[in-house]
Amino acid sequence: MDAERDYCPVHEAIQVLQEKWTMHIVRALLDGPLGFNELGRAVGGCNPATLKVRLDHLEDLGLLQRTVHSQMPPRTSYELAPAGVDLQRVIDAIDAWAREHLDIVAIAEVDEESSAAVG
Amino acid sequence: MDAERDYCPVHEAIQVLQEKWTMHIVRALLDGPLGFNELGRAVGGCNPATLKVRLDHLEDLGLLQRTVHSQMPPRTSYELAPAGVDLQRVIDAIDAWAREHLDIVAIAEVDEESSAAVG
Repeated sequence: MDAERDYCPVHEAIQVLQEKWTMHIVRALLDGPLGFNELGRAVGGCNPATLKVRLDHLEDLGLLQRTVHSQMPPRTSYELAPAGVDLQRVIDAIDAWAREHLDIVAIAEVDEESSAAVG
Repeated sequence: MDAERDYCPVHEAIQVLQEKWTMHIVRALLDGPLGFNELGRAVGGCNPATLKVRLDHLEDLGLLQRTVHSQMPPRTSYELAPAGVDLQRVIDAIDAWAREHLDIVAIAEVDEESSAAVG
Protein backbone atom coordinates (compact mmCIF):
# COMPACT_ATOMS: atom_id res chain seq x y z
CA MET A 1 0.00 0.00 0.00
CA ASP A 2 1.14 3.51 -0.77
CA ALA A 3 1.09 5.55 2.43
CA GLU A 4 1.57 8.68 0.33
CA ARG A 5 -1.67 8.18 -1.58
CA ASP A 6 -4.22 10.95 -1.40
CA TYR A 7 -6.55 10.58 1.55
CA CYS A 8 -9.99 9.63 0.32
CA PRO A 9 -12.91 9.42 2.79
CA VAL A 10 -15.14 7.25 0.60
CA HIS A 11 -12.30 4.75 0.04
CA GLU A 12 -11.78 4.45 3.80
CA ALA A 13 -15.51 4.13 4.46
CA ILE A 14 -15.73 1.29 1.92
CA GLN A 15 -12.81 -0.40 3.72
CA VAL A 16 -14.95 -0.44 6.89
CA LEU A 17 -18.27 -1.36 5.27
CA GLN A 18 -16.91 -4.19 3.10
CA GLU A 19 -15.86 -6.21 6.14
CA LYS A 20 -18.05 -9.29 5.96
CA TRP A 21 -21.19 -9.02 8.18
CA THR A 22 -20.65 -5.35 9.06
CA MET A 23 -23.53 -4.03 6.95
CA HIS A 24 -25.77 -6.85 8.17
CA ILE A 25 -24.93 -5.90 11.78
CA VAL A 26 -25.64 -2.22 11.15
CA ARG A 27 -28.92 -3.04 9.42
CA ALA A 28 -30.07 -5.27 12.31
CA LEU A 29 -29.23 -2.59 14.91
CA LEU A 30 -31.04 0.17 13.01
CA ASP A 31 -34.24 -1.40 14.39
CA GLY A 32 -33.00 -0.90 17.97
CA PRO A 33 -30.59 -2.37 20.57
CA LEU A 34 -30.04 -6.13 20.63
CA GLY A 35 -28.28 -8.64 22.88
CA PHE A 36 -25.38 -10.67 21.46
CA ASN A 37 -27.42 -13.79 20.71
CA GLU A 38 -30.36 -11.84 19.29
CA LEU A 39 -27.94 -9.98 17.05
CA GLY A 40 -26.38 -13.26 15.90
CA ARG A 41 -29.81 -14.56 14.93
CA ALA A 42 -30.74 -11.31 13.17
CA VAL A 43 -27.49 -11.29 11.16
CA GLY A 44 -27.73 -15.01 10.34
CA GLY A 45 -24.82 -17.30 9.46
CA CYS A 46 -22.04 -15.33 11.19
CA ASN A 47 -20.14 -17.41 13.75
CA PRO A 48 -19.98 -15.94 17.29
CA ALA A 49 -16.19 -15.39 17.23
CA THR A 50 -16.38 -13.35 14.01
CA LEU A 51 -19.41 -11.47 15.31
CA LYS A 52 -17.46 -10.50 18.44
CA VAL A 53 -14.49 -9.27 16.35
CA ARG A 54 -16.79 -7.16 14.16
CA LEU A 55 -18.64 -5.71 17.16
CA ASP A 56 -15.38 -4.82 18.91
CA HIS A 57 -14.13 -3.09 15.77
CA LEU A 58 -17.35 -1.12 15.32
CA GLU A 59 -17.18 -0.12 18.98
CA ASP A 60 -13.53 1.01 18.57
CA LEU A 61 -14.55 3.12 15.59
CA GLY A 62 -17.34 4.76 17.59
CA LEU A 63 -20.11 3.28 15.45
CA LEU A 64 -21.74 1.36 18.25
CA GLN A 65 -22.06 1.32 22.02
CA ARG A 66 -21.95 -1.75 24.22
CA THR A 67 -23.84 -1.65 27.51
CA VAL A 68 -23.41 -4.20 30.29
CA HIS A 69 -26.60 -4.32 32.35
CA SER A 70 -25.89 -5.13 35.99
CA GLN A 71 -28.43 -7.80 36.66
CA MET A 72 -28.13 -11.53 37.40
CA PRO A 73 -27.04 -12.97 35.06
CA PRO A 74 -25.37 -9.85 33.57
CA ARG A 75 -26.68 -8.96 30.12
CA THR A 76 -24.85 -7.09 27.34
CA SER A 77 -26.66 -5.09 24.71
CA TYR A 78 -25.43 -3.43 21.54
CA GLU A 79 -26.79 -0.20 20.13
CA LEU A 80 -25.73 2.08 17.29
CA ALA A 81 -23.96 5.32 18.23
CA PRO A 82 -25.12 8.44 16.31
CA ALA A 83 -22.51 7.88 13.56
CA GLY A 84 -23.82 4.33 13.16
CA VAL A 85 -27.44 5.51 13.02
CA ASP A 86 -26.38 7.83 10.17
CA LEU A 87 -25.57 4.71 8.13
CA GLN A 88 -29.35 4.42 7.69
CA ARG A 89 -28.90 6.43 4.49
CA VAL A 90 -26.48 3.82 3.11
CA ILE A 91 -28.77 0.90 3.99
CA ASP A 92 -31.73 2.80 2.50
CA ALA A 93 -29.78 3.33 -0.74
CA ILE A 94 -28.96 -0.40 -0.89
CA ASP A 95 -32.60 -1.22 -0.16
CA ALA A 96 -33.86 1.05 -2.96
CA TRP A 97 -31.31 -0.40 -5.39
CA ALA A 98 -32.19 -3.97 -4.41
CA ARG A 99 -35.92 -3.46 -4.94
CA GLU A 100 -35.30 -1.99 -8.37
CA HIS A 101 -33.00 -4.85 -9.36
CA LEU A 102 -34.72 -7.85 -7.78
CA ASP A 103 -33.62 -10.02 -10.74
CA ILE A 104 -29.97 -9.48 -9.84
CA VAL A 105 -30.29 -10.05 -6.11
CA ALA A 106 -32.34 -13.20 -6.81
CA ILE A 107 -29.48 -14.53 -9.00
CA ALA A 108 -27.02 -13.69 -6.22
CA GLU A 109 -29.07 -15.74 -3.78
CA VAL A 110 -28.97 -18.75 -6.10
CA ASP A 111 -25.17 -18.38 -6.41
CA GLU A 112 -24.84 -18.29 -2.65
CA GLU A 113 -26.89 -21.46 -2.26
CA SER A 114 -24.87 -23.25 -4.95
CA SER A 115 -21.62 -22.24 -3.24
CA ALA A 116 -22.98 -23.46 0.09
CA ALA A 117 -23.93 -26.78 -1.50
CA VAL A 118 -20.46 -27.20 -3.04
CA GLY A 119 -18.55 -26.03 0.04
CA MET B 1 -28.61 -21.51 6.21
CA ASP B 2 -32.38 -21.61 6.37
CA ALA B 3 -33.72 -21.95 2.85
CA GLU B 4 -37.19 -21.29 4.25
CA ARG B 5 -36.28 -17.81 5.51
CA ASP B 6 -38.26 -14.92 4.10
CA TYR B 7 -36.76 -13.55 0.93
CA CYS B 8 -35.29 -10.15 1.66
CA PRO B 9 -33.88 -8.06 -1.23
CA VAL B 10 -31.72 -5.82 0.97
CA HIS B 11 -30.16 -8.87 2.68
CA GLU B 12 -29.25 -10.36 -0.70
CA ALA B 13 -27.90 -7.05 -1.99
CA ILE B 14 -25.65 -6.76 1.08
CA GLN B 15 -24.42 -10.30 0.39
CA VAL B 16 -23.22 -9.08 -3.02
CA LEU B 17 -21.84 -5.71 -1.92
CA GLN B 18 -19.94 -6.99 1.11
CA GLU B 19 -17.67 -9.16 -1.06
CA LYS B 20 -14.25 -7.64 -0.54
CA TRP B 21 -13.28 -5.17 -3.33
CA THR B 22 -16.71 -5.19 -4.99
CA MET B 23 -17.67 -1.67 -3.88
CA HIS B 24 -14.18 -0.40 -4.79
CA ILE B 25 -14.57 -1.92 -8.28
CA VAL B 26 -18.02 -0.36 -8.76
CA ARG B 27 -16.77 3.00 -7.57
CA ALA B 28 -13.80 2.94 -9.97
CA LEU B 29 -16.03 2.00 -12.93
CA LEU B 30 -18.57 4.75 -12.19
CA ASP B 31 -16.01 7.11 -13.75
CA GLY B 32 -16.08 5.14 -17.02
CA PRO B 33 -14.77 1.92 -18.62
CA LEU B 34 -11.33 0.64 -17.63
CA GLY B 35 -8.94 -2.08 -18.76
CA PHE B 36 -8.03 -4.87 -16.34
CA ASN B 37 -4.71 -3.36 -15.24
CA GLU B 38 -6.11 0.17 -14.98
CA LEU B 39 -8.92 -1.21 -12.84
CA GLY B 40 -6.44 -3.03 -10.62
CA ARG B 41 -4.53 0.21 -10.06
CA ALA B 42 -7.75 2.17 -9.40
CA VAL B 43 -8.98 -0.39 -6.85
CA GLY B 44 -5.56 -0.68 -5.19
CA GLY B 45 -4.29 -3.66 -3.18
CA CYS B 46 -6.49 -6.35 -4.77
CA ASN B 47 -4.48 -9.19 -6.29
CA PRO B 48 -5.20 -9.96 -9.98
CA ALA B 49 -6.67 -13.43 -9.30
CA THR B 50 -9.20 -12.04 -6.81
CA LEU B 51 -9.97 -9.12 -9.11
CA LYS B 52 -10.74 -11.58 -11.92
CA VAL B 53 -13.08 -13.62 -9.66
CA ARG B 54 -14.94 -10.49 -8.59
CA LEU B 55 -15.26 -9.19 -12.17
CA ASP B 56 -16.56 -12.56 -13.40
CA HIS B 57 -19.14 -12.62 -10.60
CA LEU B 58 -20.28 -9.06 -11.32
CA GLU B 59 -20.57 -9.95 -15.01
CA ASP B 60 -22.62 -13.09 -14.18
CA LEU B 61 -24.95 -10.95 -12.08
CA GLY B 62 -25.42 -8.48 -14.94
CA LEU B 63 -23.76 -5.60 -13.09
CA LEU B 64 -20.96 -5.14 -15.59
CA GLN B 65 -20.11 -5.80 -19.22
CA ARG B 66 -16.81 -7.06 -20.51
CA THR B 67 -15.75 -6.09 -24.02
CA VAL B 68 -12.90 -7.70 -25.93
CA HIS B 69 -11.57 -5.22 -28.49
CA SER B 70 -10.26 -6.97 -31.61
CA GLN B 71 -6.96 -5.24 -32.07
CA MET B 72 -3.37 -6.43 -31.80
CA PRO B 73 -2.73 -7.18 -29.00
CA PRO B 74 -6.40 -7.76 -28.04
CA ARG B 75 -7.62 -5.50 -25.24
CA THR B 76 -10.38 -6.16 -22.69
CA SER B 77 -12.35 -3.38 -21.07
CA TYR B 78 -14.86 -3.43 -18.24
CA GLU B 79 -17.86 -1.14 -18.00
CA LEU B 80 -20.85 -1.00 -15.67
CA ALA B 81 -24.17 -2.26 -17.01
CA PRO B 82 -27.24 -0.08 -16.21
CA ALA B 83 -27.88 -1.97 -12.93
CA GLY B 84 -24.28 -1.30 -11.94
CA VAL B 85 -24.53 2.38 -12.82
CA ASP B 86 -27.56 2.55 -10.50
CA LEU B 87 -25.21 1.68 -7.61
CA GLN B 88 -24.07 5.32 -7.89
CA ARG B 89 -26.73 6.10 -5.27
CA VAL B 90 -25.14 3.63 -2.82
CA ILE B 91 -21.63 5.00 -3.38
CA ASP B 92 -22.99 8.57 -3.03
CA ALA B 93 -24.62 7.64 0.29
CA ILE B 94 -21.33 6.16 1.54
CA ASP B 95 -19.49 9.27 0.33
CA ALA B 96 -21.88 11.61 2.16
CA TRP B 97 -21.64 9.53 5.34
CA ALA B 98 -17.83 9.41 5.14
CA ARG B 99 -17.50 13.18 4.74
CA GLU B 100 -19.72 13.74 7.75
CA HIS B 101 -17.78 11.25 9.87
CA LEU B 102 -14.20 11.89 8.81
CA ASP B 103 -13.00 11.19 12.37
CA ILE B 104 -14.24 7.59 12.11
CA VAL B 105 -12.88 6.86 8.64
CA ALA B 106 -9.54 8.36 9.71
CA ILE B 107 -9.41 5.94 12.67
CA ALA B 108 -10.26 3.07 10.32
CA GLU B 109 -7.32 4.01 8.10
CA VAL B 110 -4.94 3.93 11.07
CA ASP B 111 -6.27 0.47 12.04
CA GLU B 112 -5.70 -0.76 8.52
CA GLU B 113 -2.10 0.48 8.50
CA SER B 114 -1.40 -1.10 11.91
CA SER B 115 -2.78 -4.42 10.68
CA ALA B 116 -0.65 -4.18 7.55
CA ALA B 117 2.43 -3.47 9.68
CA VAL B 118 1.74 -6.48 11.94
CA GLY B 119 0.86 -8.85 9.07
